[in-house]
Formats: sequence, structure tokens, C-alpha cells
Amino acid sequence: MPDAVDLIRSKRDGGQLSAADIRWLIAAYTTGTIADEQMAALLMAIYFRGLAADELMAWTDAMISSGERLELGGLAAPTVDKHSTGGVGDKVSLILAPLVARCGAAVPQLSGRGLGHTGGTLDKLESIPGWRASLSNAEIGAVLAATGCVICAAGDGLAPADRRLYALRDVTGTVESIPLIASSIMSKKIAEGTGSLVLDVKVGRGAFMQDLASARQLAQTMVDLGNAYGVRTSALLTRMDAPLGRAVGNAVEVEESVETLRGHGPADLVEVTLALAAEMVRLAGLSADPADALADGSALERYCEMIKAQGGDPEAPLPSARHTEFVTAQSQGWLQRLDARAVGVAAWRLGAGRARKEDAVSASAGIICLAKPGDEVAPGQPVLELRTDDPGKFDRAREALAGAVGIGPDAPEPAGLVLERIG
Amino acid sequence: MPDAVDLIRSKRDGGQLSAADIRWLIAAYTTGTIADEQMAALLMAIYFRGLAADELMAWTDAMISSGERLELGGLAAPTVDKHSTGGVGDKVSLILAPLVARCGAAVPQLSGRGLGHTGGTLDKLESIPGWRASLSNAEIGAVLAATGCVICAAGDGLAPADRRLYALRDVTGTVESIPLIASSIMSKKIAEGTGSLVLDVKVGRGAFMQDLASARQLAQTMVDLGNAYGVRTSALLTRMDAPLGRAVGNAVEVEESVETLRGHGPADLVEVTLALAAEMVRLAGLSADPADALADGSALERYCEMIKAQGGDPEAPLPSARHTEFVTAQSQGWLQRLDARAVGVAAWRLGAGRARKEDAVSASAGIICLAKPGDEVAPGQPVLELRTDDPGKFDRAREALAGAVGIGPDAPEPAGLVLERIG
Repeated sequence: MPDAVDLIRSKRDGGQLSAADIRWLIAAYTTGTIADEQMAALLMAIYFRGLAADELMAWTDAMISSGERLELGGLAAPTVDKHSTGGVGDKVSLILAPLVARCGAAVPQLSGRGLGHTGGTLDKLESIPGWRASLSNAEIGAVLAATGCVICAAGDGLAPADRRLYALRDVTGTVESIPLIASSIMSKKIAEGTGSLVLDVKVGRGAFMQDLASARQLAQTMVDLGNAYGVRTSALLTRMDAPLGRAVGNAVEVEESVETLRGHGPADLVEVTLALAAEMVRLAGLSADPADALADGSALERYCEMIKAQGGDPEAPLPSARHTEFVTAQSQGWLQRLDARAVGVAAWRLGAGRARKEDAVSASAGIICLAKPGDEVAPGQPVLELRTDDPGKFDRAREALAGAVGIGPDAPEPAGLVLERIG
Repeated sequence: MPDAVDLIRSKRDGGQLSAADIRWLIAAYTTGTIADEQMAALLMAIYFRGLAADELMAWTDAMISSGERLELGGLAAPTVDKHSTGGVGDKVSLILAPLVARCGAAVPQLSGRGLGHTGGTLDKLESIPGWRASLSNAEIGAVLAATGCVICAAGDGLAPADRRLYALRDVTGTVESIPLIASSIMSKKIAEGTGSLVLDVKVGRGAFMQDLASARQLAQTMVDLGNAYGVRTSALLTRMDAPLGRAVGNAVEVEESVETLRGHGPADLVEVTLALAAEMVRLAGLSADPADALADGSALERYCEMIKAQGGDPEAPLPSARHTEFVTAQSQGWLQRLDARAVGVAAWRLGAGRARKEDAVSASAGIICLAKPGDEVAPGQPVLELRTDDPGKFDRAREALAGAVGIGPDAPEPAGLVLERIG
């Protein structure tokens, strides 16, 4: 039997762990033979030393093997999913799932909740009265077969070892490791059983990866892992300097998603959504053009069917906040910068996000970006609309927004949001 | 209040922690606000990033402040202590304490137990019938005043935070960090209240530090820390490639120490002991020559007084092992190499050491080196005598000794054991 301390020291000193060692480590951690403090030390050593391709495969494999694998092979349509590394105002999943379903694929979008300044897809959809995030495996299959798409919580049965490791990484400063991020994301997506997968790797001020080189490395690592497991995988690197679209929060993002499905979405959101949709359709081996399905409103029907199939009422009015304040432009000029991270933190502080997993989120809190980079503004003109049910939260939200709005004498150069495709 | 995860990430990313942060970290760890897994991740980050001089001072300070400080100022003689980083056959403390006391100093030698392949001073002395390692602070003062020396366990009251951190480092692969080793050793020695301190930093195959550069760095770090706290501190780097003296174990090392105090010690042991004694006498501001006190046998009297003062009978026969086997020379020639680490591990496996803190050690188990590097040997001539009460242990001890004895056609160059003085 391997010795935990020997394996920690080996990784610490730049050695390579065997597949058997890694299987043992993950199994021993699951059963408690390896204590949290030993795994924490190993994770920090991995932060510094990385994992070689073989180690990463074995690590991901051990996490997949710690739980069940969904069986989606019985569907007539090819399955394809999307995963985003998380951005501010990123409601793309809500639009993409019905849109790509409308193009002929089956989209099993197993999602997470928000933590910190980036929102969670499930939190957003839970602002719809009656909508249920937790489905049994049988229900997932049934909704998917009936509507071509499902957005729901990844069950506790998928990669449970990753769940425990993620909680440990969160409190030990070991989240920001490319192999650990890649294996965490990909173990869940591979266990989910999708045939194809498109990764939206965000880059910039509001993203987890703030520079292009790191984002590229993460994307390539995940693409390689997916393809090694027979999941056709590719990645788009997309810019996340300003919030995506105009709405940041929960109910407000659902409303903007529905507007986009009606064909009236903001240009940046439509650009990213269509690029990801086209990539998903291509990987699924289909030929429909997602732009048509978005323009003619037919994807909206799919969305409504999916919401109804999960108990929600797509016609019901969504909660709206009782209190509103504005952040206004301080000078004349062009809006050149609207800091996504600051807007995300402010929305979180207004109640849209949670600091700890146990916290509840407010459905109605959030921020509307009344102006976006490239817009011309006049002094006193509202740029951000802050919404909350608890007016005591405005002050700390405003603090987060200090310096978040940049206005200059010239119009900024228009720049595309899709930076690169990998895979 | 600082946030534990922020501090871990800051150290991980190469930042410097403030003195207030470090005080908070050690206090919060002591009270359980910071969990073992968070401290483990921080320790691994420190392994990779190190501690700057200011951080190391604050870290050491926080460990000293976690407990009491002994008050040895009431003694007429200047106090001086020695600490060794640990070697195989290193019974120097047993000889040095009475020897330097005989030269006019007071020697408070607060010691630890053995773990792994290096023996512990207290384990060795406990083979003497009646001898007690645990003394109250009042008893320490009384023995020291009466005999000029005391060798006893460092009480739980000295640097308790270090005790807990050391146990954590032991299971998380974070022992081998120069700032963590230095602060662990020096916090206890500073809390002990000695006026001067000589460090014996071992270098070589049987030592913790296997290369001269690391040993030098550790020595300089500890010398700087000691002097910063007003403890006159210097270090000798001494070679630890072969066992020191001929005896490796517990009772056998006590017997060799007594022989050395009688003036009949092996040359290498005498060389290191006298070099350390001279350094201690110099730091204590005294002028006696330790070589005289060793040659005339007068230091032996002090030793017997000290043993008696701690309940031991220095005349009592020591336990001897029931079973003996020999490792013999395989060829004609000069003994060129006798691997200290292998001999240490073999003695440990014969019962002289412990794998876990809770284990008991055998007083009688050990190894006698019948030949040392530089001796000429004939085929079949016994080189090592293995002793144990449990003959089932011979096989694994022999395994540890595979390749440990090197014989060649030429006599090795004689080399001094004291490599360098620092401070």
C-alpha cells in the first residue's frame, strides 16, 4: 500500500505519481484513510508542480470512478453540452440549450450554483415560480427526450470525490490550478455522458482566467481530456471584461434571456451565444443554422416547454426588487470601460449571489447596465441601475463599483468577443 | 480580521505576510479558527516560497509566545546549550553536558525523542535504571544549580504551537523546509532561556541536510534568529556520512559515552565533542580547555552526579540484547564507506527507534560498528554486530544494510569531521 506522506513528498519534489498511486489517493481520501490536511498539502504541491498528462488522466478517471455515469445513449438526437468557466451576466446557457435543441441536438445542461461574483444558472432559473433544479436521472432523460433540452443540478452521484475536493480547495487557497480546474470540470461532464462538449473559457477582468495564455492552457487541457475520453470537445476563448448583455442578477437575467430568444437580445450576448451554438451544432454533426432559430423565435417555444417540463410557469411574472438606485456618469464622453468583476461583486452584495454554499440568493436583486462600453454618455446620465429588496445593501454595492466606470473623450475601438477556437 | 484563504493565497503567490498576519495565523490555529487543512496548505506554500527574514522572526516569535519561557538567569554560571540536527550514533549530548559543566558553564540540555532513523537523547538515557526524563521547571533549576548540567524533556509548556505544527508537518510532507525547521528548533531553544547556543548542523548521507549548501543556509538562518533574540549563537557544520563512534542504539550509546568520558572514546566522537565543547566554552566567555577535562576523567564525575540527580543509577548494569548476528566483510581491502543512514534504519528496525510517537523503544537493541571507514578488513571479518531481543527483526535490518558497506583496494583519505563554523 502506498504511503500518503511519501506520495506528497514525491509530488512536492517534482516526481510523477503513478496511475495506481492516484487511484489509491482518491479512494483513500474518500474513505478517510487520507486526512483533509494531507490532501490539502498535496493539492498545494500540485498547484506548484502541476500534473503531467498521464497524471491528469488518472486523477480525472479516479474522480469519475468515484460515482455513477449517466447513460444518455438511448436518445435519437446527438447529445451536446456547453460549459462556461463563469462570467458576469453570463446567461448564455438559458438561451443556448433550447436554441441548440431546436437545431436538432439533445442538450443535457447539468449546471451548478453561483459562488462569489459569478452567478449560477440554477439560481437564475429558480426565480421562475415552480421551476425545479433537482431532477432524478429518470426525469433528466424524460425532459431531454420530450423537449431536446434540460437544465438541472448535477446530482450528488456524479463525481462525488470532486465535490469533496472542490470544497477543500475552496478553503485552502488551491482553486487556481489549471489541472485541478480541468479535472474538476471534465470529470463531471464526462460522467454526465454527453457525446460532445463546447467549453466557453472566459478571459479578462471579470473572469477566472485573467490572461490569454492561462485561458489557452486551461482550454487545451480540457479539450485534450475530453477527446481522450471519446467526448468530442472544443473550446472558445471569449472576452469577459464587461458584463455580458445588460442584466446581472437572477430574475433580470431570465428576462433578458427570454428577450434574446424573442430575437431582441443585446449584440454582445447574441454574438457569444451564436458562436457557441454554431460550435455545438458542428460538433453534434448537424447542419442547421442557429441564427435562423434565434431570429424566427422558434427556440423560445423550446425554452417554454423545457421550463414547463421542470414545473415552472414561463408566463408567470418574475419577482421585482422593491428598491432602485442609479450610478450616473460623472463626465461627458464615451463609456470605455465597465468593469465586469466590480459589477459582479456589486450585484452579489445587493443579494444576487452567495458568500457560502448554504446561503440563499435574492431572485430580484441585481444590476441593469443602462450603458455599455461604446455608448456615448452625458454627465448625470444613469449608467447602472442597482436593484435590491434591502436598501441597506446599496452602500456596500456602491463601494464595489468605485472606479468601475471609465469614461473618455474618444469612442473605444469595437472588438469581437470571440478570441480564439481551440480543438 | 485577516482571512485565512487570503493569507494562504498571498504566500502561495510569493507575497509577504505581515507580523500581525502571522501572529493571527498562529493564534487562530491554536484556537481552531484555522483548520488543520488550511495550515497544511500554508505550510506547503511556505515550503515552496520560503519565509523572508521579517516573516521568520514573526513566525518564531508567535511560537515562543504560545507558551512559557524558562528563567535561568538566577544561576551563577553562564548558561550554554547545544542542539544537533540529528545524526546516527550521535551521543554527543551525553558527554558534552557534563564536560562543559566541568569547564564552568551551566548546560540546560532540553532534548527530544528519536523519530525515524536518528536516535533521541532521552531514549538513550532512559536505558539507565531509574533515570527520569520529565522534570518540573523547579527540578530543572535544582539539578542545574547542583551539577552544572541537566538533560531532560522539553516540557509541554515550551512553544506548544510548535509541537502542534511539527505533528502536522510530519504527516503532510512539509518537514523539509529550512525556515520551518529553523523556527521550530529556535523557538524551543529561545523559550528555554539559554544565554548561548551552539548548533551542530549535520551534513551528509546520514543527516537531514544532505548537501553543504542547504546545511549552511539552515545554520545561518538559525544563527541569525538566535542572535536577533539576544542568544549568542554559532554553528558547526559536521560530517555525517558514517555513524559517529561505534555504537548505534540506546544502552550501547550510553556505554560508549561513559567510555568516552573515561578518556577512551573513539577518535571521531572525541573530535566532534571537543570541537563543540570548545565552541560552547568560548561563547560562554570561559577559558577552560575541555580536552583536559575529558582526559583527566573529571567530567565523568559530573555525569554521574547528573544521572543520580535525575533518579538514575550510573553504576547499574544496562540492558543487553539476547540475540546477536554479524554482518561480515565480503572482500579484502579497506573499509571506504559505512552508510550512516542505512545503519540508522537497521538499528531502528532492530527496535532502537520508533515509527510513531506512541511507540516504545528497546533499550538493548542496536548495532556496534566493529570496523569504521579507514580500517583494513579481511573476507569474513565481522564489520557490524546487530543486537536485538527479537530475532524476527534481523531480516529487515539486513535488508536496510544492503550495499551499506563499501570496501575498496585503497585506504580512504582521512578527512576531518568539522567542515565549517558559522556565526
